[in-house]
Amino acid sequence: MIDYPNSIAKLITELNKLPGIGPKTAQRLAFYILNRPLADVEELAASIKDARIKITHCSHCGNLTDDDPCKICSSGNRDRSIICVVEGPKDVVAIEKAREFKGLYHVLRGVISPIDGIGPDDLTIKELLIRIQSGEVKELIMATNPTVEGEATAMYIAKLSKPLGVKVTRIAHGIPVGGDLEYADEITLARALEGRSEI
Amino acid sequence: MIDYPNSIAKLITELNKLPGIGPKTAQRLAFYILNRPLADVEELAASIKDARIKITHCSHCGNLTDDDPCKICSSGNRDRSIICVVEGPKDVVAIEKAREFKGLYHVLRGVISPIDGIGPDDLTIKELLIRIQSGEVKELIMATNPTVEGEATAMYIAKLSKPLGVKVTRIAHGIPVGGDLEYADEITLARALEGRSEI
Repeated sequence: MIDYPNSIAKLITELNKLPGIGPKTAQRLAFYILNRPLADVEELAASIKDARIKITHCSHCGNLTDDDPCKICSSGNRDRSIICVVEGPKDVVAIEKAREFKGLYHVLRGVISPIDGIGPDDLTIKELLIRIQSGEVKELIMATNPTVEGEATAMYIAKLSKPLGVKVTRIAHGIPVGGDLEYADEITLARALEGRSEI
Repeated sequence: MIDYPNSIAKLITELNKLPGIGPKTAQRLAFYILNRPLADVEELAASIKDARIKITHCSHCGNLTDDDPCKICSSGNRDRSIICVVEGPKDVVAIEKAREFKGLYHVLRGVISPIDGIGPDDLTIKELLIRIQSGEVKELIMATNPTVEGEATAMYIAKLSKPLGVKVTRIAHGIPVGGDLEYADEITLARALEGRSEI
C-alpha cells in the first residue's frame, strides 16, 4: 500500500497532535495548506515559531508578553494601587474587553488543585505577596473562576494578604446579564440573592 | 483595551484563516502551541513549510509527490497496462487502502464543472490521452465520484479514449458493504439492480 508522500504524511501527523484535530481534519487542513500560496504558508509557519520563541512571562504580573514588563505593567495610565488576580492570560483579555478595570493584573498561572498535584508553590502567589509588600497596593480583586479550586485559591490568597494591610474583594456572582431566572442553577440564584444591592 | 501580545494575536489570526478553525479554536490552539516544548513547535512549523515547498505533481500521473516520478509510477511491481482515473490525491490513498488495485493512476485534479468555470483544459485530460497514445495502456478504470460532474467527466474521457483503442470501465455503484437496503436511496438501489451479477 502506498500512502501519502512523506512530507504530507508528516504534516498530517503534526497537525493531528493539536488538540481537537483528528486525522480527517488534519488531512483537510494539510490539503488546504498545500493549495495556499507559498508566502501565506511561510507566514503561518513563522507565526507559530515566532510566538513560541518571543513570548515570555512578565516579571511583574506573570502575564504572557512579547516585552518585559508587559504593556499593562509599563503603562502610565493604570491605577497601580489596585490589582486584579486572575488564573490565566485569557482572563486578562476577557476583563480588558469589559473596559471597566483600570488597575494592574496578577496572573496566577493556574489554581490550587491538590487532585492535579498543583500546590500554592506552583503558582505566582509568592510574587503577588512581594508586590503587596512594596506598599503601593491598596486593593486586591480576586477574579479566579467560581469553581471549587478557584474559590479555594481566592480564600487562600485572601488569608495571606489581609495581614499585609490590603483590602481583598471578590468579583460578584449572580445571574448573567441577559440570562433567565428560570434557567439559572440554584447556587447561582443563592449567590445572586446573597449579593443583592439596594436600588 | 489591551489585547493579546502581538505575537500571540498574529498566531491566532493565522490559525483562524484555516478552514473550520474559528476564533475560539484558534485561541485554544495558540495557547496549546505556547505551552509545548520549543522542539515540538519547531517541528510543526517546519512540517508546514516543508510540505508546501517539497510537494510537486508527478509528471506522469499528476498525483502529489515528494519525488518525480512518484512512488507508484516508478515502482516495478505495478501493472502498467491499466490506469485508474481519479479526481484527486485523496482518492489514490483511498483506493490504495483497499489493497485491490495493482495498476497505475491518473489524477485529474478536479472534475469538469461549468458552474465553477472548470473545463476539460483545466484538468490533466490531455496528459492522460498522451499516456494512452504511448500504447502501453490496455484499460482505463474511471473512478471519479458518482456525482453529476464526476459522471460527466467519466463519459467525456471515455468518449475521447475509446477511439484510441483502450477498454474503458467504470467502478461499480451499489449498496455499500454493511449498508442497509431499507436506508439506501432510490438511485443507489436502481444502480445496484442494474449492475447485478450472477452468483
